[in-house]
Amino acid sequence: MLTAPKDTYTISWRDGVVHMIDQRVLPDRFEVLELTDYRQVADAIRTMAVRGAPAIGVSAALGLALAAQEALAGPPAEFFERLRAAGQTLRETRPTAVNLFWAIDRVLRVAESQAGDPERAAAAVLAEALAMQEEDVLANRAMGAFGGPLLPEGGNVLTHCNTGSLATVYYGTALGVIRNAFEDGKQLHVWVDETRPRLQGMKLTAWECRELGIPATVISDNMAGWAMRQGKVDAVIVGADRIAANGDTANKIGTYAAAVLAQAHQIPFYVAAPLSTVDFSLATGAEIPIEERAADEVTHVNGVQVAPDGAQVYNPAFDVTPAGLITAIITDRAVVYPPYTENLARLREA
Amino acid sequence: MLTAPKDTYTISWRDGVVHMIDQRVLPDRFEVLELTDYRQVADAIRTMAVRGAPAIGVSAALGLALAAQEALAGPPAEFFERLRAAGQTLRETRPTAVNLFWAIDRVLRVAESQAGDPERAAAAVLAEALAMQEEDVLANRAMGAFGGPLLPEGGNVLTHCNTGSLATVYYGTALGVIRNAFEDGKQLHVWVDETRPRLQGMKLTAWECRELGIPATVISDNMAGWAMRQGKVDAVIVGADRIAANGDTANKIGTYAAAVLAQAHQIPFYVAAPLSTVDFSLATGAEIPIEERAADEVTHVNGVQVAPDGAQVYNPAFDVTPAGLITAIITDRAVVYPPYTENLARLREA
Repeated sequence: MLTAPKDTYTISWRDGVVHMIDQRVLPDRFEVLELTDYRQVADAIRTMAVRGAPAIGVSAALGLALAAQEALAGPPAEFFERLRAAGQTLRETRPTAVNLFWAIDRVLRVAESQAGDPERAAAAVLAEALAMQEEDVLANRAMGAFGGPLLPEGGNVLTHCNTGSLATVYYGTALGVIRNAFEDGKQLHVWVDETRPRLQGMKLTAWECRELGIPATVISDNMAGWAMRQGKVDAVIVGADRIAANGDTANKIGTYAAAVLAQAHQIPFYVAAPLSTVDFSLATGAEIPIEERAADEVTHVNGVQVAPDGAQVYNPAFDVTPAGLITAIITDRAVVYPPYTENLARLREA
Repeated sequence: MLTAPKDTYTISWRDGVVHMIDQRVLPDRFEVLELTDYRQVADAIRTMAVRGAPAIGVSAALGLALAAQEALAGPPAEFFERLRAAGQTLRETRPTAVNLFWAIDRVLRVAESQAGDPERAAAAVLAEALAMQEEDVLANRAMGAFGGPLLPEGGNVLTHCNTGSLATVYYGTALGVIRNAFEDGKQLHVWVDETRPRLQGMKLTAWECRELGIPATVISDNMAGWAMRQGKVDAVIVGADRIAANGDTANKIGTYAAAVLAQAHQIPFYVAAPLSTVDFSLATGAEIPIEERAADEVTHVNGVQVAPDGAQVYNPAFDVTPAGLITAIITDRAVVYPPYTENLARLREA
């Protein structure tokens, strides 16, 4: 049986090298990538070796730290140009999760505040990326502490995709909330949506639950409604890739269906995400760009073709859950209830 | 590219041998099983070499024809005992689809009407099984003719699992309705739920649509809600494994969720099934036994393990959609609208 140290960070920086758990090969193998070039980081994000909105944000920040090292070796006059170009490369990897853009913008801003001094700027880039790494862990712990009490003792909690340590630097968002409640002594059972097409629930969440000793049962996504109908689901909790100012939430495809089903069965539906996932520049979820990924994610499983030759496929990687279906948004600063436009804005200003 | 003659029956009888398309290996290979023993037919039903409520009903009937041949070779006094024992073996293969029990009861009744004459009884069993085979095709044509006009010109029709020729003797139930509308000249596009865990939608329905030239797009089950939200679904049509007297409908797992989502988006939701799928002995769907199948249907795809070692799985093969979510039931006798208890009973007596 494959095991891994519980306290390994999904992404870390050691001696000028970015280490990341290769999530494409779990749960078959536990492998750590060692990346020395920001272009490798961009590839890792694009190919989903690393995924999860907070994790790709921090990955991009550490990618910029690699880019800054590289740019230092070039002409000083080109330092910022090269750093910005690296930012652009990282920015173009995936369109939906706002944490990616948020992290790149934040790191570039810090670099530019050291204008004219590439050495100091490169040091500041690394320091900022490492700060974001630690902030992510603290944010997850905070969400856990805020959200854990919302989960019912003895409850069955359904989750979608993977929002655990693997989706973040460590501890997780939605799965972190479940973990907090579990570590607090609550008897919980987790329904794990397998999460087609890439099966992050079955491959990653079920693996994390096993490592943590949290009782969990995998179901195919289309079983969630039937489990609800039978009274077997007490709460649903998911993560987020981007939340609009009004609370509309983009998250892994299938989240919207889970939210509609939760409402139809009067089951609370929670989103757990750090405030950095809220994109206050977008009024509603209609403005969130939804990534469409390659057909072979659906037609092939573990490299083996399961569809007929020539099958047409639609493969949106995310969907948008309207705010009206969300019971509460658990952030790293507070639990936010409707009306979200007002209450999220208030939190931002606090 | 794999092709097959369009007009091959899924199950047929030739010179004392039951031929059936092996649905476990599609769309990779087109193979026909040749079965000479009713125990092989029972295995084929149990392992889902043949599946689909009408197809397993006719398979069981032809299995009894094999059993009658075998029993004829034994002592005449044991003929009926042996035939009934074969019926019991076939009956125990799968619990949910009522067509299986309906077909076995009907064939045994015919055999018993020839009491005391094994030769005549065996001939009557075969004749009845072959009659059911032809009736199934006619029933599907009738459902197509009744239901086809309900599908909108230019519409996007979502379907779940496989309800085409492969689920029946020929032509199909829900997919037969789509086929009828398509052959009638309607421009339709089919959304094919891949239908986890066994992927009958992706493997069988997408293959049948391709063979028939019907435009179709495969989605993972959890994308259906998002497609509806975007206005991309005009109607949902599914088959049935058992319909209670009040219209509650057991069908492939995920049907219930599709029905809840259809209602939430005000999209008509149709069930297509012959009247033989209605179990008038059950007042409501709560009494329908729901088969749970092995965990490896979820944890493995095409024989390859995708879940972590030791993952717990819940694998109900069917769910029950309450009658209140069903716009109409398209039978081989008429399109039935609510109130179903009254209108189904009236049809039965007609």
